[in-house]
Amino acid sequence: MRIGIVGVGLIGGSVALASRARLGAHTIGFDPDQDATALAVTAGALDAAADSVAAAVTDAEVVFVAAPVGRLPALVDEVLAHAPDGCAVTDVGSTKRTLAASHADQRFIGGHPLAGAETSGIAHARANLFDGATWYLTPTTTTSGILYERLHRLLAGIGARPVAIDPQRHDLLMAAVSHLPHVLANVLVAQAAHSLGGERLPAIGPSFRDATRVAGANPVIWTDIYLSNRDALIEQIDGAVTHLQQFRAALAEADADAVAAAANAAAADHRALQASQVAGGELHELRIPVPNRPGVVAELALALGRGGVNIADLGLYPAADMRDGVVAVWIAGTEATAQALNIVETLGFQVFSP
Amino acid sequence: MRIGIVGVGLIGGSVALASRARLGAHTIGFDPDQDATALAVTAGALDAAADSVAAAVTDAEVVFVAAPVGRLPALVDEVLAHAPDGCAVTDVGSTKRTLAASHADQRFIGGHPLAGAETSGIAHARANLFDGATWYLTPTTTTSGILYERLHRLLAGIGARPVAIDPQRHDLLMAAVSHLPHVLANVLVAQAAHSLGGERLPAIGPSFRDATRVAGANPVIWTDIYLSNRDALIEQIDGAVTHLQQFRAALAEADADAVAAAANAAAADHRALQASQVAGGELHELRIPVPNRPGVVAELALALGRGGVNIADLGLYPAADMRDGVVAVWIAGTEATAQALNIVETLGFQVFSP
Repeated sequence: MRIGIVGVGLIGGSVALASRARLGAHTIGFDPDQDATALAVTAGALDAAADSVAAAVTDAEVVFVAAPVGRLPALVDEVLAHAPDGCAVTDVGSTKRTLAASHADQRFIGGHPLAGAETSGIAHARANLFDGATWYLTPTTTTSGILYERLHRLLAGIGARPVAIDPQRHDLLMAAVSHLPHVLANVLVAQAAHSLGGERLPAIGPSFRDATRVAGANPVIWTDIYLSNRDALIEQIDGAVTHLQQFRAALAEADADAVAAAANAAAADHRALQASQVAGGELHELRIPVPNRPGVVAELALALGRGGVNIADLGLYPAADMRDGVVAVWIAGTEATAQALNIVETLGFQVFSP
Repeated sequence: MRIGIVGVGLIGGSVALASRARLGAHTIGFDPDQDATALAVTAGALDAAADSVAAAVTDAEVVFVAAPVGRLPALVDEVLAHAPDGCAVTDVGSTKRTLAASHADQRFIGGHPLAGAETSGIAHARANLFDGATWYLTPTTTTSGILYERLHRLLAGIGARPVAIDPQRHDLLMAAVSHLPHVLANVLVAQAAHSLGGERLPAIGPSFRDATRVAGANPVIWTDIYLSNRDALIEQIDGAVTHLQQFRAALAEADADAVAAAANAAAADHRALQASQVAGGELHELRIPVPNRPGVVAELALALGRGGVNIADLGLYPAADMRDGVVAVWIAGTEATAQALNIVETLGFQVFSP
């Protein structure tokens, strides 16, 4: 299989590495940054560096366009102009409607891997980046079935789980679970900064920090994402405003039943989402009050590791002086949770299941 | 010093334990749950259990009222009716205006310790719960200076950092950094549940989980908190709606400059808040790509612990299959961060500072 990679960063580089290592593919890559392609060749991701988009795709059977969202429409045009008839062309952008609507070519299939958000650049590329990751594909009625099957097999072959989704539905979903959370985190830091007026943020525990962790995330990339999904994001913002105004009305009328109903509905929604999120058993939370000295997290994690219990998630809730606190661990599945409980109690710690 | 404790749960019990252990105080407690006072006596928190509010406070020099927010006004009334002239009466509720406005007694000083959110009940009480914790006090012009000084010294003596704050300002601040974040988390789960319509939440990484961690938190307690701070919370909700509508307008006009300006402002606000939050040096984040096998977090934490480096915060960002991922650690101060970097690299891991 001959694969063209246009844009050799974390995603493009990892596709190339995985395709060569696992499928014996032949990869040719182009990137405006020549250092990136040189590094990709050295790292064993690319068989060859191309000096133009055309050169990277002329003989390809599959092309991945892995560039920032704002640059995708023009780049996909250029790729389609030079790719052969029987070549599947896909992208990895985090919004999908615009591309799908403007590229009704039978060779084009929009894509979006849910992986790799933590780092960027070819230096971080790795062959197993997509193992188990959902990879959305947005075939349309004009898409070639043969080319869709080829792309699907390739993605499964590099470890991903390809999932077909309507472009409209994809963008609405991402607006709800990714873009709106970023917008609300931005609102929270703006409100807090304004309310504090330069005063120090009080030591209020982890809830504010967790809620605002993504606030102000890479403004260049996120400006692109917000704009490319603006219709769906506007719909989500309108929904959020409606919710806020309903809750405001309940507060204004001191309507305890309505306020409680909103809080209860949120609890039910949260439980339902958590239950749906977890493969391999529902997540169980264990809270372990500990002295917050260096080494105590290690002691716990090490003991669980020795017992073969994997920690799906972990949170530290230090007291204000960082001497005492609570370690929360989340374990998937009832059996592993019971085992974890036993291990931690054997170490002499108290454990609570909230 | 004779201390009356009305409500013997986590907070009341911890005040009692710390006052006896550190200040040699004599503590008498009342709780409608007689098992709680019995346990508190056994655990060494109370010298004696009282069978009524009156009995707990008649001879007290300081009284702590530690009950749910909705029950505080009536309880504080009852305490003031039975406490002697020279007795300081305080509460531990998480909103302060209502109580301050309705209790202009010179003996009453509103209070709110920022501690103990993770657990509840006398079984979890501990003498060091308040070490280093901010403890807001809301004295007014009617407050006795002598009684304020007594309460301040007592709180400092059990390890807290008493900070005087205007009740109005306190409630506005809490609305911004605690109550609004809970409301927005509730909005996010409602929007996501609605958008998914029963579909499974895709594996989208930790940002949605972090943003919604407090969604639907104990609906009974939070209904009380929302209602007791409804004016300030309404103000914050209005501010949030205004922000959302401005951002919506920028999106609707595809105004890239305005969208980028909002993203940049959020990044600046977030940095400013993070910098103000940390005593003992700004937090530095280190990202360490690791195989997500049992034991790897332990290995890192243990090595840092041996080197005397304390982990202020820790996050795991597992890949979708939970086999590979990134461990993010936050270290306070430049020197400790450099040391951590060195320790982790010596173990053979790559480290990135985003």
